[in-house]
Amino acid sequence: MQTCDTQTTRIAPRTGVAFTLPKGAALTVIDPEGTQVSDLLAFAADDVREVISNGRTFDYEETIALTTGNRLWSNRSRVLLTIEEDTVGRHDFLLTPCSKDTFRHFYPDKPVHRGCFGNLAEALASWGITEDQIPVAFNCFMNVPVHGDGSIEVLPPPSRPGDRIVLRAQEDLVIGLTACSAYASNGGAFKPIDYRIDQGGEVPS
Amino acid sequence: MQTCDTQTTRIAPRTGVAFTLPKGAALTVIDPEGTQVSDLLAFAADDVREVISNGRTFDYEETIALTTGNRLWSNRSRVLLTIEEDTVGRHDFLLTPCSKDTFRHFYPDKPVHRGCFGNLAEALASWGITEDQIPVAFNCFMNVPVHGDGSIEVLPPPSRPGDRIVLRAQEDLVIGLTACSAYASNGGAFKPIDYRIDQGGEVPS
Repeated sequence: MQTCDTQTTRIAPRTGVAFTLPKGAALTVIDPEGTQVSDLLAFAADDVREVISNGRTFDYEETIALTTGNRLWSNRSRVLLTIEEDTVGRHDFLLTPCSKDTFRHFYPDKPVHRGCFGNLAEALASWGITEDQIPVAFNCFMNVPVHGDGSIEVLPPPSRPGDRIVLRAQEDLVIGLTACSAYASNGGAFKPIDYRIDQGGEVPS
Repeated sequence: MQTCDTQTTRIAPRTGVAFTLPKGAALTVIDPEGTQVSDLLAFAADDVREVISNGRTFDYEETIALTTGNRLWSNRSRVLLTIEEDTVGRHDFLLTPCSKDTFRHFYPDKPVHRGCFGNLAEALASWGITEDQIPVAFNCFMNVPVHGDGSIEVLPPPSRPGDRIVLRAQEDLVIGLTACSAYASNGGAFKPIDYRIDQGGEVPS
């Protein structure tokens, strides 16, 4: 008998994966140990030049604080994902995935890591997606307050063990998903990320 | 004798242009009548897959409020433009250019216009730049406050007649530039935008 556990996939610390998510399916991104970030990208499966856009999303949703009920829009003004459940209420859609360059810039005394950017690029390469096609990711659980003067800072995520966000695919998608590699975004404690896919109405009850 | 006036080019209301800007040159974007927005894009001239990125810029500059001294970074983590002068101090790098889709969404009772997005796409087409390669623009003079709860709104620009921003090219660039077409971003008064190019050290004194 299949249990919930067997449906959950673990992303090892500082790695990333890519997979298809059919229209109607729900993707649950879980922070199993707490205080970890997961960078999420979504491309239209039938034409990967269509991809989530922070600018279109901020415009249509009229907020940068995205949570239950909000939609993630593409560069072609289509809704790719809707947020159906969110036990954290804190995510970031301002900042690009960490990369070799951001490691050199922000952590000059630390070993350079290819970061979520490199992990996403490798995971997405088999769909023909290139580095230049990687936009700002929807960074689940990432805590980036915007202060009154416009300055921003990256704080540890408020997520506790088992916290999750559930996103429903509104189109057939290719998803990229990581367990974050940067120091600032997870308080320096690199941890795994879990995810689960529930197929819309096709799941046996 | 060449005067300042002959060096200034006017962008007609609700239109856009594209041009090359050599490394070292300064681009001055002027709001001649006040309360108007100009969407600005910058691509690396030798490979237009490199383009300004709001996410990389917010990350490296550690602010969403960009003004004199700030730099506009590319998706490849290079500085493409630096802001050398700014008489307004209010610009937006959160929202994508207005388009047919945003007109249908925000102004359902108004005629659909192709917007800055359509104007930029047409102007940039001769450089082989496609619609899908148009990211969030740096929206000069656009007034998009972010409230404490993360919500945003689009208010009329605070720019007065003659206000300007000066950006210096750090690489050879292709620039796209508009006089904005949307109602909300300029208080419903469609106006022109002026710009001037000063060639780095090559200008005769």
